[in-house]
Amino acid sequence: MTDKFQQLADRLDNAISQGDQSVIQAILLQASSAETARLLESLPPRERLRVWPQVTPKRCAKVLLALPQPLRRALIEQTDEAKLIIGLSQMEMDELADIDADLPIPVVSAMVQAMDAQRRQRYERVRDYPDQSAGGLMDVDISALRADVSIKAALRFLRRLRQREGTLPEHLDSLMVVDRDNTLLGIVPLSLLVSTEMDTSVREIMSTQVTSFTPEMPATSVAQTFKDKDLLSAPVVDHEHRLIGRITVDDVIDVIQDEADKALYSQAGLNNHPDMFAPIVQSATRRALWLGINLLTAFLAAWVIGLFEAAIEKIVALAVLMPVVASMGGVAGSQTLTLVTRGLALNQINRNNIIKLIGHEFSIGALNAILWASLVAVIALKWFGDWQLGLVFGLAMIIVLITGVLAGASIPPLLKRIGIDPALAGGVVLTTVTDVVGFFSFLGLATLLIL
Amino acid sequence: MTDKFQQLADRLDNAISQGDQSVIQAILLQASSAETARLLESLPPRERLRVWPQVTPKRCAKVLLALPQPLRRALIEQTDEAKLIIGLSQMEMDELADIDADLPIPVVSAMVQAMDAQRRQRYERVRDYPDQSAGGLMDVDISALRADVSIKAALRFLRRLRQREGTLPEHLDSLMVVDRDNTLLGIVPLSLLVSTEMDTSVREIMSTQVTSFTPEMPATSVAQTFKDKDLLSAPVVDHEHRLIGRITVDDVIDVIQDEADKALYSQAGLNNHPDMFAPIVQSATRRALWLGINLLTAFLAAWVIGLFEAAIEKIVALAVLMPVVASMGGVAGSQTLTLVTRGLALNQINRNNIIKLIGHEFSIGALNAILWASLVAVIALKWFGDWQLGLVFGLAMIIVLITGVLAGASIPPLLKRIGIDPALAGGVVLTTVTDVVGFFSFLGLATLLIL
Repeated sequence: MTDKFQQLADRLDNAISQGDQSVIQAILLQASSAETARLLESLPPRERLRVWPQVTPKRCAKVLLALPQPLRRALIEQTDEAKLIIGLSQMEMDELADIDADLPIPVVSAMVQAMDAQRRQRYERVRDYPDQSAGGLMDVDISALRADVSIKAALRFLRRLRQREGTLPEHLDSLMVVDRDNTLLGIVPLSLLVSTEMDTSVREIMSTQVTSFTPEMPATSVAQTFKDKDLLSAPVVDHEHRLIGRITVDDVIDVIQDEADKALYSQAGLNNHPDMFAPIVQSATRRALWLGINLLTAFLAAWVIGLFEAAIEKIVALAVLMPVVASMGGVAGSQTLTLVTRGLALNQINRNNIIKLIGHEFSIGALNAILWASLVAVIALKWFGDWQLGLVFGLAMIIVLITGVLAGASIPPLLKRIGIDPALAGGVVLTTVTDVVGFFSFLGLATLLIL
Repeated sequence: MTDKFQQLADRLDNAISQGDQSVIQAILLQASSAETARLLESLPPRERLRVWPQVTPKRCAKVLLALPQPLRRALIEQTDEAKLIIGLSQMEMDELADIDADLPIPVVSAMVQAMDAQRRQRYERVRDYPDQSAGGLMDVDISALRADVSIKAALRFLRRLRQREGTLPEHLDSLMVVDRDNTLLGIVPLSLLVSTEMDTSVREIMSTQVTSFTPEMPATSVAQTFKDKDLLSAPVVDHEHRLIGRITVDDVIDVIQDEADKALYSQAGLNNHPDMFAPIVQSATRRALWLGINLLTAFLAAWVIGLFEAAIEKIVALAVLMPVVASMGGVAGSQTLTLVTRGLALNQINRNNIIKLIGHEFSIGALNAILWASLVAVIALKWFGDWQLGLVFGLAMIIVLITGVLAGASIPPLLKRIGIDPALAGGVVLTTVTDVVGFFSFLGLATLLIL
């Protein structure tokens, strides 16, 4: 619970300032791996290095996996190889495949050598798929039943399996049913297994309407399907429909969270899952890129203003009011941009409805344009006592508000078509358009109508 | 799968244009309730009204639940009461409690009257908790075991329960164990139940280290705990630790998604889960609010510029360059703002580290300030051939970039303290600060140093 997390954070902070290693250890034992990762993230670098050694060897790899990559790499450098190898031995294959790129090569070799043949084979199978695919998400440690056994025999099989392996796979909510060639026939939810007469056969109770994934499928599509169908787990099959893995909902939640975070961070030009206390030069460099792009577009807008220096020299009020025009266009556009970018990501906007949507947004923009144009025209008239200025201000407001919504609606599909992520670049392109159009229309109209 | 969803959308679009009701019905039968909701959302209003009657009565309530509230209400008005009541009878109690506020009162009465005493009691228990709390998320239809029974007896109990109710609760991954007074003693994962010898007692295999929630706990805290501890389900207990409900991961995923959407939409002043094709006047009104707030802040910035009309009249280059200063401050600030707002939401930023974080951000901002100030000073010098203007431009850039990051870091905690959601208001407050500081410092320095 969040309040408990806050309590953990407070206690950890106390323990650090008192330098009491054993208290730090005790606090960490009460936190899950994900919580330990969040605690570490919230600490400044020096404190991190004091807390990290107190994470137990068994836990260390899972905590590393839950950390943003730069911090993970920094802590791996501070960890001795023996401790890492103990931690890694506690992980599932899909987790190993997500972290191995960050590990020192000797550790990876030692880890692979310590595996038995079966584990090694499984590991190599998962490693071949990219992180952000069904193959990268899946766990290959799956236990499957045959269709012709009875419930009683199935239960016996599960008891033996647990005796042999010591534990059953995490988050086991259903069992896969396969034939002799490992072709997926169906699934049996455990809740059915525990509530059916013992002499029934698995075939009679298995569901054959199974939602399955192929390993190449993008992780985001997998996540959407889990949400749409309220799944807890689902099989991954190859192109001959043979069972090769299983995806569980906990991995899917991570995908959903990552996607959401990406949408939020990329708008500000931050990398996904940024480290609050990343080294200053590293953070500054990353952010400088975004500031540089913005500087270019800002100078483009400045250049447009420069075209009308003569007009501004004569009517200084133009300089006073022009940022209002550009700013309103940006706000109107970003409302539409947010809506359309999200709709594209959810596959709710497509060629069937994009034209209607642009028309819809145009109407909304036009209504607001008339409203605000009238208001600002009156304000300009009262402020500067110049009805021509009011007229120009109002007209420019109409142009920029309508341009804003049209740009907001059309930029994301255009960016998507040329292969650029609208969530990343949409805001910059939009602001460039609304600034340039805002300044150009206001100053241009003034030159035409007043001078 | 998303591609399959796209196919569904395309086929539905064809069927609508051919006006073939039976094909529309067939397509909807292949979609889950959540997918049907997404299909409806992606249709323009007129098409929605053609598709909606083809949703089967059994499905209709679950589809309504998955829709954004305004669209849900609009469709409920188009649905006859008998159909609604059939749909509602298919829902779990927590789902009913989430939708009942949108239903016509006669439908709610008819629905409650059709319930047996047990269902009615359960419904009334859930209805009392707000949607966004553990109580609002929980399902009260829970089956619990006694600790002293054997596995064999437990399985017999589950078989009888399924015979009696026709089905077991959705997403059943574990069973709660209670004593005579319904006090929660522990939980037994089904995977353990199916892999343990029949004569073992439930007490021997139950886990007593249970993460449980009280009904008042906020839904976002519940979601964070599910993520931190990789839970599939968890019990809700009252203050005497008596079992009153059960929360499952599918409800938690909805909370996570809603929170993420809210963060994204609120930045643009849109309501959560906006309807792309909401009536134009309704959408325009909602957006006008945000435009109005922005207009106020833009005029505040304009007023600041107006203070320096004399300076601009003498040096028109000031008007050309001033938007660059304000814009860079806004970008630098919004990077920090995004990071800090997210960190606050994740409870990673607190009184222990906020001061260090502000110091960290200051250093990043100062580095970038020096970099970009030098660059823009040189550009201004080359462009306008005026070293004083270059100096003023560079100094103002330093001031606004540093102000931007400091404001970005301190606005969210301040807003949170006075009870305003930083995700909603942070951007507007930040832009106001960076615009005012940007214009004031640039034009003020010019007045001091050049005139």
